[in-house]
Amino acid sequence: MRYPIICALLFVSLNSFGQRPPRLSSPDVRADKSITFRYYAPEADSVTLSGEFMDAPLLLTKDSSGIWSITVPPVKPDIYPYSFRVDGVLTADPNNTHIFANERFKRSIVDIPGENPLIHSLKDVPHGKITYELYNSSTLDTTRTVLVYTPPGYDPTGSQKYPVLYLIHGGSDTEETWTKVGNANLIADNLIEAGKAKHMLIVMPYANVRPHPRKAFTDDMINDIIPFIESNYLVYTDSDNRAIAGFSVGGGQTLNIGLMNTDKFAYIASYAPYTSTEEFRENFTDWKPDADVINRQVKLFTISVGEEDFLYESVLENIAMFEEADVKLESYIVPGGHTWMNCKKYLATTLKQFFQD
Amino acid sequence: MRYPIICALLFVSLNSFGQRPPRLSSPDVRADKSITFRYYAPEADSVTLSGEFMDAPLLLTKDSSGIWSITVPPVKPDIYPYSFRVDGVLTADPNNTHIFANERFKRSIVDIPGENPLIHSLKDVPHGKITYELYNSSTLDTTRTVLVYTPPGYDPTGSQKYPVLYLIHGGSDTEETWTKVGNANLIADNLIEAGKAKHMLIVMPYANVRPHPRKAFTDDMINDIIPFIESNYLVYTDSDNRAIAGFSVGGGQTLNIGLMNTDKFAYIASYAPYTSTEEFRENFTDWKPDADVINRQVKLFTISVGEEDFLYESVLENIAMFEEADVKLESYIVPGGHTWMNCKKYLATTLKQFFQD
Repeated sequence: MRYPIICALLFVSLNSFGQRPPRLSSPDVRADKSITFRYYAPEADSVTLSGEFMDAPLLLTKDSSGIWSITVPPVKPDIYPYSFRVDGVLTADPNNTHIFANERFKRSIVDIPGENPLIHSLKDVPHGKITYELYNSSTLDTTRTVLVYTPPGYDPTGSQKYPVLYLIHGGSDTEETWTKVGNANLIADNLIEAGKAKHMLIVMPYANVRPHPRKAFTDDMINDIIPFIESNYLVYTDSDNRAIAGFSVGGGQTLNIGLMNTDKFAYIASYAPYTSTEEFRENFTDWKPDADVINRQVKLFTISVGEEDFLYESVLENIAMFEEADVKLESYIVPGGHTWMNCKKYLATTLKQFFQD
Repeated sequence: MRYPIICALLFVSLNSFGQRPPRLSSPDVRADKSITFRYYAPEADSVTLSGEFMDAPLLLTKDSSGIWSITVPPVKPDIYPYSFRVDGVLTADPNNTHIFANERFKRSIVDIPGENPLIHSLKDVPHGKITYELYNSSTLDTTRTVLVYTPPGYDPTGSQKYPVLYLIHGGSDTEETWTKVGNANLIADNLIEAGKAKHMLIVMPYANVRPHPRKAFTDDMINDIIPFIESNYLVYTDSDNRAIAGFSVGGGQTLNIGLMNTDKFAYIASYAPYTSTEEFRENFTDWKPDADVINRQVKLFTISVGEEDFLYESVLENIAMFEEADVKLESYIVPGGHTWMNCKKYLATTLKQFFQD
């Protein structure tokens, strides 16, 4: 037998633990945009709800069948992460199939539709597609996944070439977070259909490189990802047709990759950047930029942040540093925190600016 | 303010509940293929581990810091689903980024590598890619996702056409389960490189159609998915170049779609089919098949099942029914249960048979 006797003593009867939990309706979004959340935990002492649509956790109420529930008042239309905390332990909603793509946090997402479709909604417009490619990273000596959004009408048999946005996720996110949480493909579909964004490719790499030092991603981007895309897709290869953007840790990577390679990227958009990294210090502390070169090569340099973002003060310092160095930049300061609600807003705003000159 | 006073009374202090759980190494696969699982739950009374590499749940042991753990003896190389049950409630492993793609069950997956790479392993061979397409389903009056694997060397600008396998997931799985749990793309990459499978497309639709009756998927496949693929990819459109396969509920759908449309599919492979459905009864109860027509049109009809599969007896009855009707079929009976370990085996076996005549 495969298990030693000592393990057999630890077997737990399937009778007491083997039953399936009931299938609950959660989250239950009503027409008035109030939401009921439910969680089955007959033996728990406390179940709370945390959600980015509210300021502090709320305690759920248990009924006699072991189902905890709570209804929150109407919520502003958007896509929000939320999670339960069961006896102190965070968990996603087991009844919700929409999971927040992240390596660390187990959260679910709830989509509150607007009266009119929001910019990130699935609308009846022509759709691009997302291709999952495996590429060999010589930098990291491994095979990695990269997602490639091609816009509606992209025709590999044609001669039309496109510009490319390289779009980087946050620190513990994955290469799927921009599409599965940020709806980047649907935002692009909708803006392209409305004539507000150019037809472009959006390349979404996996930017976590542990156990390598974080700056190895810069080499992976420059030496592996960009050449892979440019040899496999119909894209322009001059800097005027390359943009780079990213959120949080990815926003810091955007500054490092973009500003140190202004011969390669004419559009640089950093969303709520996290810049407390060795790479950022090496690149920019006591850095004496040739602002003239940057300002000549870069057509758009923008930094976005929310006023309640925990990185707000740090981002303001970044902006001040670049402005003192006479680097031209636009800052985009909005309400809200370090959230994917704001990410979608940053992306929608800058997608309209890329490749417009 | 957004929340009424009555809700404010329910706020729970962030001090007691807001801290992040520690990041644990789980699962921790050792060189000898033993595995340690860890789960943080200081307030739980019991944490058990269920895994398809063992027969019954095992109780974990809690240390003084609230971390539960258990080490299981060496496990046969494969990819296995597992989950924790915390005070009776099933949950995935919060420290594992590999989640079993499923709408109902929250499980994680653990990959035990072999001494030599297994057929589903990522190897240094040419890779196909997976494209996520949105298509309009006239049958279901909505926009749905379909995944399309194109083999290494697929060139949309060329003239080479390919055969197509339509591959259906299990009942509560999603369109991603065949790639994210079944590694269907890597199995195809490896078999193609070894010259054991033909270069082919593999189309993986989303086959759950609630609230529509289950048989609406048959119409979606015939009237929407196949025409979408055939108008967007370089594929042959005769029945000799179409195969259909599926697991569990998808194995039942395979029988319904395939055998009722033998003018469209020359290869039909049903893996551990679930056939207790109205559609199956309507199609096959008291059915008087024209075995001659089927046997003439179908080049391969195969049904696979594991000897410990909970559907084993039912599948044997299905096989007997078709054999009594003089329908030619191959049965592929292997050890094991109703699992994705067996799914990969069924797929690898039949991929070598499709389009070989």
